[in-house]
Amino acid sequence: MGNKIRVGIVGYGNLGRGAEASIAQQSDMELVAVFSRRKPESVNVINPDVKVLHIDEAKNYTEKIDVMILCGGSATDLPEQVPAFAEMFNTVDSFDTHAKIPEYFASVDKVAQASGKTSIISVGWDPGMFSINRVMSEALLPEGNTYTFWGKGLSQGHSDAVRRVDGVKNGVQYTIPSEEVMKQVRNGENPDVSKNDRHVRTCYIVAEEGADTERIEKDIKTMPNYFVDYETTVHFITEEELKRDHAAMPHGGFVIRSGKTGEGNNQIVEYSLNLDSNPEFTASVVTAYARAAYRLNQEGQKGAKTVYDVAPGYISPKTAEELRKDYL
Amino acid sequence: MGNKIRVGIVGYGNLGRGAEASIAQQSDMELVAVFSRRKPESVNVINPDVKVLHIDEAKNYTEKIDVMILCGGSATDLPEQVPAFAEMFNTVDSFDTHAKIPEYFASVDKVAQASGKTSIISVGWDPGMFSINRVMSEALLPEGNTYTFWGKGLSQGHSDAVRRVDGVKNGVQYTIPSEEVMKQVRNGENPDVSKNDRHVRTCYIVAEEGADTERIEKDIKTMPNYFVDYETTVHFITEEELKRDHAAMPHGGFVIRSGKTGEGNNQIVEYSLNLDSNPEFTASVVTAYARAAYRLNQEGQKGAKTVYDVAPGYISPKTAEELRKDYL
Repeated sequence: MGNKIRVGIVGYGNLGRGAEASIAQQSDMELVAVFSRRKPESVNVINPDVKVLHIDEAKNYTEKIDVMILCGGSATDLPEQVPAFAEMFNTVDSFDTHAKIPEYFASVDKVAQASGKTSIISVGWDPGMFSINRVMSEALLPEGNTYTFWGKGLSQGHSDAVRRVDGVKNGVQYTIPSEEVMKQVRNGENPDVSKNDRHVRTCYIVAEEGADTERIEKDIKTMPNYFVDYETTVHFITEEELKRDHAAMPHGGFVIRSGKTGEGNNQIVEYSLNLDSNPEFTASVVTAYARAAYRLNQEGQKGAKTVYDVAPGYISPKTAEELRKDYL
Repeated sequence: MGNKIRVGIVGYGNLGRGAEASIAQQSDMELVAVFSRRKPESVNVINPDVKVLHIDEAKNYTEKIDVMILCGGSATDLPEQVPAFAEMFNTVDSFDTHAKIPEYFASVDKVAQASGKTSIISVGWDPGMFSINRVMSEALLPEGNTYTFWGKGLSQGHSDAVRRVDGVKNGVQYTIPSEEVMKQVRNGENPDVSKNDRHVRTCYIVAEEGADTERIEKDIKTMPNYFVDYETTVHFITEEELKRDHAAMPHGGFVIRSGKTGEGNNQIVEYSLNLDSNPEFTASVVTAYARAAYRLNQEGQKGAKTVYDVAPGYISPKTAEELRKDYL
């Protein structure tokens, strides 16, 4: 275990669990401990040998952990925890409230600059891999349009919304890219379409016994903000079907840049993800960037960073020589 | 023009021409001059206002050019020119002889370290964008397989080969990814297939008058190295059809990583290019990395670099603040 990167996890929901699984796949990392606000004995880690500690104990691990992966929520956990942890540790997180990223960056940067630590914020797939592809493909093809499509994926917010409809016992909602619009984009047609027109919504609903399914369908399709501006399909299924077919958390999406070069040649750059497990993939991205946070700090590159500041080689366990020889 | 990055182009074939077009699209760059071994008056640039000079004049431009884009061939031009130019200029090139990259890197690095210049080598789409995606997706998903598919694209080497067949007047060859194998990969089936099985080859041949087309087809399909191990289709067409339908230089391809996380969840990461013009896209990538070479040098990061050493933000004309606010 000598020279492995020593990693800690703070917060143990779906993302923390995914991080534990991902660290186990990375040959140059070891998981030192999971920190939680819950009672340690109530935290059900995958590998029973993993140490689980109360979050207040983290301060005793500054010499034993090279980088902390913060797995809390963006609404309240991360804005509070990451500045606190950046005083003591290199950190990585998946803060994903797009509109608040600048102020979040500033608050983490201030602490990390002072402490001499390195904090990579807003890592995952969007923000994260999709962000990288939006910026790089636009840099390569300045004349053109970038389209981001999300899905097919289970949307937590929209699933919550359908479950609040009167007469709905249970249900899920999938966001699905419009095949028609995707085809136009890939053909270089540069359609002028809003986010709403790029996606359709499909709901699988378990109705309460005797509920009026026509009214439920109408209530969903006309729901402001969530559904009214989208093409929405509602399917009624049984509780058994819901459990059998809709328990997973798939997601994914597409970033497509359609540009022109020279005298009107179409050039299409596409990046896509097709994920069986959204939280496990997000955790895998965060874990790879934990490596980068540690290495950047070793090189003296301190303060808050984003994926835009991290060269691809830093997230790989291979040496620069190996990458040049075997991957370039 | 005040603060624009001042760029020079060395060599003016398809790639140099593409670089001229790409620089014109980049708002923060200006093209200072094109340098060629040919007589300047015989070099037919796109914009007649662009200065064309003999390559021997480059040495007088060390104070007037921030970065040189080297557009020569990998076989003999670049191994000679890039070390020579790295004594005087920051450089970018598209050296693509994969097997020789380590020694090429070493020879450029030695010069650039001594001169204090920055040279980004082997930039383009493969090596280049595909290389980045191979490394990043493997870092995210350590357990899995990476598949690179090339095409649909016109292959210069294989087109030359079919044109050498007796009775062939003219012809082109396209490399095409196997749809069947791509489908298996995208389904997470991790097929164990060689490069040969991942691609099929399609030839469009203009036969000489009276030539035996059956014998030509057989000669092509049984040609060692080039065709014998591939599924190959041969179509006979007229010279007019060839000129009308096969004059462009399309190319592209796919890098697909199929990995597993947690307890066997499939995660698929795919990057693809669909290019009307291969040389124009390669030139667009090289041009964006010219910006990075200049900026890295401004920051004191000297010597030879590859795309693995360049953070995504460096190739974008936007500031780090803009990227965090508008693209993350």
